[in-house]
Amino acid sequence: MNEPPVFDEAFARQFEELLRWRRDVRRFRRDPVPADLIARLIAQTQLSPSVGHSQPWRWLAVEEPAQREAAQASFSRCNVAALASYEGERAALYARLKLEGLREAPVQLAVFCDHGTERGHGLGRRTMPEMLDYSVVAAITQFWLAARVHGLGVGWVSILEPAEITAALGASPDWKLIAYLCVGWPEQDCDVPDLVRAGWEQG
Amino acid sequence: MNEPPVFDEAFARQFEELLRWRRDVRRFRRDPVPADLIARLIAQTQLSPSVGHSQPWRWLAVEEPAQREAAQASFSRCNVAALASYEGERAALYARLKLEGLREAPVQLAVFCDHGTERGHGLGRRTMPEMLDYSVVAAITQFWLAARVHGLGVGWVSILEPAEITAALGASPDWKLIAYLCVGWPEQDCDVPDLVRAGWEQG
Repeated sequence: MNEPPVFDEAFARQFEELLRWRRDVRRFRRDPVPADLIARLIAQTQLSPSVGHSQPWRWLAVEEPAQREAAQASFSRCNVAALASYEGERAALYARLKLEGLREAPVQLAVFCDHGTERGHGLGRRTMPEMLDYSVVAAITQFWLAARVHGLGVGWVSILEPAEITAALGASPDWKLIAYLCVGWPEQDCDVPDLVRAGWEQG
Repeated sequence: MNEPPVFDEAFARQFEELLRWRRDVRRFRRDPVPADLIARLIAQTQLSPSVGHSQPWRWLAVEEPAQREAAQASFSRCNVAALASYEGERAALYARLKLEGLREAPVQLAVFCDHGTERGHGLGRRTMPEMLDYSVVAAITQFWLAARVHGLGVGWVSILEPAEITAALGASPDWKLIAYLCVGWPEQDCDVPDLVRAGWEQG
């Protein structure tokens, strides 16, 4: 066994800065992201906690133009429906929000939970079967922080129809879509969430 | 706006060490954990991502002996049922696993998702309503890492009946139990998961 690390107060402060400056990013520069950096970040998610050590996360890069167009189309349809659910000033405010960077983000990843996996032998999920999905969320959270360590922004797009993404990517029907992620260099770093700056919280 | 931090390669390496040494801890020393450290860690989870900035996490400290006994009883019942679902050598192996530290952990936290919250005004969860629960999982993941920064171990106990915990704590019926966490100083630090060391992965 290796010697455990000791994290000092300076690291604790820097870690809190990391939490403070992680953002849901929707405005990306278009310059490319080195493929080996993305590969390193995805490989690092193997260190995430998972129920029964099942490691059920499955990462698919969304690269084909037709696949990206399917994601944009799904977002557009769902966003029109979402806008229609608001009224008056809130609808006007919603219409002004920029909620995704699907046209700009150079890297896009669909993250699934493999409900067919036998890894873990079912341990820890008899009474809480949702633990399998939660394990994927934990991996995404760690990816998000690790990306920010390297200056990369991540935006989690949930305004879309999971079945449409799954079909467009030809993913196994055993795989449940947990997240569609836009990844790239942010146009700007900020320590205040976009929705707070836009005044979405009020009322 | 403040100046964004730059995370250098030394920080990136330390951050990876943090991911590598975070464990699901089931063996705790019994010495107390300073209350202000737990308060600081829980306060820090306000920096976690949440859908529509809804911040739906609700943290309850489980302190009353009757509440802790209810959690232990729920675990015991569920663990007997889990053991009965395995056969032969796997059952024997399961019986030897230590899967929780409910009798030793000085701090125990139940973490809920408030399905009744109006914060966020429903943004981002029309087509993926599970985003609300996922937001709580993200906060728990960040808590877990932040705890390890300070040398604290966290164990997520999912072998229990959520309804029993919710009732024992008198939590609102709008609140869904996402996690029951044991927190304390680990008996030992290790960079290899317990289940891997125990050979649960094989076969």
